[in-house]
Amino acid sequence: MQLAILLFDQFTTLDAVGPYEVLSRLPDAETVFVAEQAGPVTNDVGNLSLVATKTLAEVPSPDLVLVPGGPGQVRLMSDGPVHEWLRAADRTSTWTASVCTGSLILAAAGLLTGRRATTHWFAVDQLPGLGAIVADQRVVFDGKYVTAAGVSSGIDMALSLAGRMGGDDLAQLLQLGIEYDPEPPYRAGSPKTAPPELVELMRGNLRAVMSGRG
Amino acid sequence: MQLAILLFDQFTTLDAVGPYEVLSRLPDAETVFVAEQAGPVTNDVGNLSLVATKTLAEVPSPDLVLVPGGPGQVRLMSDGPVHEWLRAADRTSTWTASVCTGSLILAAAGLLTGRRATTHWFAVDQLPGLGAIVADQRVVFDGKYVTAAGVSSGIDMALSLAGRMGGDDLAQLLQLGIEYDPEPPYRAGSPKTAPPELVELMRGNLRAVMSGRG
Repeated sequence: MQLAILLFDQFTTLDAVGPYEVLSRLPDAETVFVAEQAGPVTNDVGNLSLVATKTLAEVPSPDLVLVPGGPGQVRLMSDGPVHEWLRAADRTSTWTASVCTGSLILAAAGLLTGRRATTHWFAVDQLPGLGAIVADQRVVFDGKYVTAAGVSSGIDMALSLAGRMGGDDLAQLLQLGIEYDPEPPYRAGSPKTAPPELVELMRGNLRAVMSGRG
Repeated sequence: MQLAILLFDQFTTLDAVGPYEVLSRLPDAETVFVAEQAGPVTNDVGNLSLVATKTLAEVPSPDLVLVPGGPGQVRLMSDGPVHEWLRAADRTSTWTASVCTGSLILAAAGLLTGRRATTHWFAVDQLPGLGAIVADQRVVFDGKYVTAAGVSSGIDMALSLAGRMGGDDLAQLLQLGIEYDPEPPYRAGSPKTAPPELVELMRGNLRAVMSGRG
């Protein structure tokens, strides 16, 4: 089973690595990091590169396609090699998935039209304009399309996916392996629970980052 | 404020990237990935490399030292350049931290003697023999020494650290930014909650992996 994780300039690292840490440990997984060009791809903070080992053309029909988000998403909203690859890969994929604003890329490529989906809370208002139907859940399954909310939600998504791919025992084993028994020290992980003034502050920060002014 | 994250062959990616995703976003952070040699460092699964941009010698006195775990830990238990660097960096660090079996490396370097610490549940029995005192918590603070349990616990640790470094508002802002509002689909993230037969199975798997037979 081939799992392809897309990398692009200014992706958010945990969007990719959270699901990777779960899914790459599936017994029959062959996980590949793909990008337009093979080699180091630099993340959004600018001080960490992950190495893409294959070009898009080298991975034409993975069983799972996973698109992370991050500020680089805004440069991937118009048609081009990434959209073409996503549409082609989606034709034969068993699962087409995203974390964070990766779903905006999937939607812009035309793959979420009329489908229920989610994204980072900051970006959720952008989904309807791209043809998707917003679902207020952390992880959204619509047929083979799986989208997760912001950054860290990819871990939850991957465990749910692992359960559907390999059964509940396997998924629980993977959860135990990464000791995923979260104890956040604050209740601030969602705009529903965080102090409202912090939500507004973060909204401003993210607006600046996503528009390239961050 | 300089944050140094150690990379070594066969590290576990999320151990490093979980805390990175939080701490690298502190307003005054300069985060560097360091290794014995600069360049791509391959993880435990063998299909992902993160790029270390500095050698150990180039980062002699970071404000925070963070040591991830993973199967590669077993080759870092005897004295050598990594222990020497850790001891030297610890002399001036504000925080000395680890995730997962990274604490075994810290302990082997002599930095956790008589201190309360934790590690991955699988490895917790190894701490006393290395001079540390096991604390049954997901994140353990003992003065400036901070250790986290397995893999995903580094996110919780980093948020607690961010709170102590920059205050509760900043830590909550970072939590909101990564939408860390976890919803694990199973209650299997700890040996206390996972089905006992899965705990035994994973114990066997990890024993094989950590002894190089995995």
